[in-house]
Amino acid sequence: MGKKIIVLGGDGFCGWPTALHLSMNGYDVIIVDNLSRRKIDLDLGTNSLTPISSMETRLKRWEKETGKAIKFYNFDVAKNYHRMFSLLKEEEPDAIVHFAEQRAAPYSMRDSVCKRYTVDNNLNATHNVLCAIEQSELDIHLVHLGTMGVYGYETTGLTIPEGYLPVQVKKSDKSVVEFDILYPPEPGSIYHMTKTQDALFFYFYNKNNGIRITDLHQGIVWGTSTEETKLHEELINRFDYDGDYGTVLNRFLMQSVIGHPLTVYGSGGQTRAFIHLQDTVRCIKIAIENPPKPGDKVDIFNQATETHTILDLAEKISDLTGIKVRYYNNPRAEALKNDLIVARDKFLALGLNPTTLSEGLLEEVKEITEKYKDRIIKDKIVTVSTWSAKRKVDTVGSDKPVLE
Amino acid sequence: MGKKIIVLGGDGFCGWPTALHLSMNGYDVIIVDNLSRRKIDLDLGTNSLTPISSMETRLKRWEKETGKAIKFYNFDVAKNYHRMFSLLKEEEPDAIVHFAEQRAAPYSMRDSVCKRYTVDNNLNATHNVLCAIEQSELDIHLVHLGTMGVYGYETTGLTIPEGYLPVQVKKSDKSVVEFDILYPPEPGSIYHMTKTQDALFFYFYNKNNGIRITDLHQGIVWGTSTEETKLHEELINRFDYDGDYGTVLNRFLMQSVIGHPLTVYGSGGQTRAFIHLQDTVRCIKIAIENPPKPGDKVDIFNQATETHTILDLAEKISDLTGIKVRYYNNPRAEALKNDLIVARDKFLALGLNPTTLSEGLLEEVKEITEKYKDRIIKDKIVTVSTWSAKRKVDTVGSDKPVLE
Repeated sequence: MGKKIIVLGGDGFCGWPTALHLSMNGYDVIIVDNLSRRKIDLDLGTNSLTPISSMETRLKRWEKETGKAIKFYNFDVAKNYHRMFSLLKEEEPDAIVHFAEQRAAPYSMRDSVCKRYTVDNNLNATHNVLCAIEQSELDIHLVHLGTMGVYGYETTGLTIPEGYLPVQVKKSDKSVVEFDILYPPEPGSIYHMTKTQDALFFYFYNKNNGIRITDLHQGIVWGTSTEETKLHEELINRFDYDGDYGTVLNRFLMQSVIGHPLTVYGSGGQTRAFIHLQDTVRCIKIAIENPPKPGDKVDIFNQATETHTILDLAEKISDLTGIKVRYYNNPRAEALKNDLIVARDKFLALGLNPTTLSEGLLEEVKEITEKYKDRIIKDKIVTVSTWSAKRKVDTVGSDKPVLE
Repeated sequence: MGKKIIVLGGDGFCGWPTALHLSMNGYDVIIVDNLSRRKIDLDLGTNSLTPISSMETRLKRWEKETGKAIKFYNFDVAKNYHRMFSLLKEEEPDAIVHFAEQRAAPYSMRDSVCKRYTVDNNLNATHNVLCAIEQSELDIHLVHLGTMGVYGYETTGLTIPEGYLPVQVKKSDKSVVEFDILYPPEPGSIYHMTKTQDALFFYFYNKNNGIRITDLHQGIVWGTSTEETKLHEELINRFDYDGDYGTVLNRFLMQSVIGHPLTVYGSGGQTRAFIHLQDTVRCIKIAIENPPKPGDKVDIFNQATETHTILDLAEKISDLTGIKVRYYNNPRAEALKNDLIVARDKFLALGLNPTTLSEGLLEEVKEITEKYKDRIIKDKIVTVSTWSAKRKVDTVGSDKPVLE
C-alpha cells in the first residue's frame, strides 16, 4: 500500500475526483466529509446537474471497478475536533488534503447566515486540522486548496508571484531594507477573506510548530469529469450550474445547451485564471509527491493554467453555439476590468502538462449538460446574491455591458 | 445625553475603566460582557489580586457616586449574533468599543482547548460585530483594541508605522510600483494571530461595506487604577498577577512586594512597548472623538507611550526594591533580543499627554499589591504555558540569562 492520505471534503466537486485519482495511483485514501455541499443544495433549492450517487454507492462502485477500497467518515471537521484528532492518531496519515471549506464567493455574500457560516466553518475547520496535527505529534504534510482570489485583481501590471513578493522599504535614515512578504491580501468576498486568514494560520503553525504545509492558490475550475469519474455513471462528479456555486465557464456551457443567454455580470472585463478539473487532481498528486522539507516555510503554488476575460470566454462560446451574451448588474464590488499576469513556473517545473481550453473539452461539458438538461431548475441560473444592499439583484439583464 | 457607546468586554481589565471613563465624560455607556474573564479565573484556579465586585454592585456604586447609569447585558458576542444585532437596532449606538476577545498570549498557547477557544471566540466575536453593524444599516463607528504584537519584533531597525507601510516592488520590466500595504503580520502566538486575522475582517468590511473602523495597536498595559476606579473600593479594577494573564510590569511590582524573584523569561533582551492604563482610557476617548470620515480606510493608531527591554524594567525594580532578578526558560519561540522603534505621532497630534514610567506610579501599584497581598496564590506566579511541547516548563529558574 502507498502513502496514506486523508481527503477532507472528499465528497465535493474537486474533493471527489481528487480522492479517486489518488486511490487509482496507489495511495491509501480516507475521505472525511459531512456532506455539507449536498445539504446546502437542499437549503438553496438547487441541485447538481449530474445525478450524483450517495457516498455508499460511490465507494462500492469504486471498489467493484478498481478493486481499491476508500474509507469514509461522516463528521464536521469544524465542529468535531476530537474526532479529527482521534482519526489522526488511529490512521497516522502521511498527508491531509484539505477541501473542507465553504467555497462559493456569492454564497458567502448572500446574507448574515451565509457570511457567518462561511467564517465559522472555514476558519475553525482549518484551525482544527492544524491544531490536531500539532497535538498528534505526527509529521503530517498538509495540502490546502486555496484560491487565486487572495491576490486580488491587480491593475498595475505586476506579475502575481507564487505566494511571496520581494519588497523594498526605505528606513528613516534613507537606507533600504529588502524582504519577502506574503503577497498583500486583497479579498473580494467573505469567502476569499477566509482564505487570506487561512494563510495566517499556516504562517503561524509552520513557523511555531514546523508543520509542513503546501497552499495551492487555485484558479476557477472548469470541466466536470476526470479519467476516474468516467469509469462508471455511479462515479459521476457533481456539476454546479446555479448562480452561487456554478463556476463561470461551466455555467456558460450549460446555458448554451438550453438556450439561456450567457450571463455576464457587469462589463465582462474581469480577467480570471482557469484550470481544468483533470489538472486540479494532477496538481494535488504532484503537491503530495513534493512536500516541503522539514524547516521549509509554507510552500505556495499558483494552480492555474491560463487566463481569460469573462467576456472573451462568453464570446468564444457564443460564436460556437449562436447563443447571445446578456449583461446583468454586477453583484460584486470590483473593478470594471483588471490585469492578471500569473507566475506558474513551479507546477510546470514539476512536470505538469497543462490541459488548456479546447473545443474537444468544451464539447465534453456540453455532452454532459445535454444528457441531464431536464434536471435544470431554471430560476436558479441567475445569481441573487449581492455584495451589499446597495447592489440590486438583476434577473432580467440587458444587451449592453453594465459599466458601473 | 452625549453619544451612545457600547463597550463589548466592559467587565475586563481595560474594558471596565474604559466604560467608567466614557460614562464620566458624558457618554451614554452600555456594557456587554459574558464575564468570561472571571470564569477563566475559575478554570485556571487563579484570581484577581484585587477583590473585584460583581457587575451589579459595581454599577449601583457607580450610579451612587456619580449619578450616571450604565446598562449591562450579559451575553456572548461570539455565540449570540442575534442578541448583538437586536441590541444595535434597539440602542442605535454611535460607536462600539470592542474588547470582547481572549487577550492573553500564554493562555492562547496553553493547550488545544485554549488555542481553539481563542480562535473561535476572537474571530467569531469580531465577525459578528461587523456583520451586525452591516445588517443594522446604522452608521456605527467601531473602535477595536488590537496589539503592537501584530507587527512582530523587528531586528532591521525599521520604524514601525501606524498600520500601513509604503513599499516598492520591481516589475518584470524593471520599472517600480509603489503602494501602501498593511504592515506584514508577524504573530508570535495564537492570540496575536487572531489579531492579524481581525485586521483582514476590518479591511474587507471597510472596503466592501464602508464601515468606519479604528484599530488601536496597543502596547503592554501597566498600572491598575484610573481616576474613576479610585472613587470607591467597589469600583476597583481587576489586577492580574498570574503567569498567563499578568502583564509584565505589574507582575514585577507584585513580585517585589512579596519578595518573589522577578520572573524574566529567556534573556530579558526582548523590547516591548508600554502604556499606562490611564492613557489607555484617554486614547479610547480620543479615538471615539476622532472617527474616520465616511469613505476613509481603516484608521490605525499605535497606542503605546514608551519602549523598554524586559531586563531594563526588571533591573529598575530590582534597584528600587532589592529583590533579585531570576531567569526562567523562555516558553515562547522568539528572538533573544529585538529592536522596537514605534511611530506614535497620531495620538500625540490629537492631544495625548503621555503618562510615562515614574516612581510615583510604580509606588501606586505597589500600594495596591501590599494591601491585597494575602490574596495571592503563589504557585500561579510562574507561567506553565509553553509555545510547543519541545519547550520545557521551568518553575525553578536560574541566576543567569537563558540564552537559547
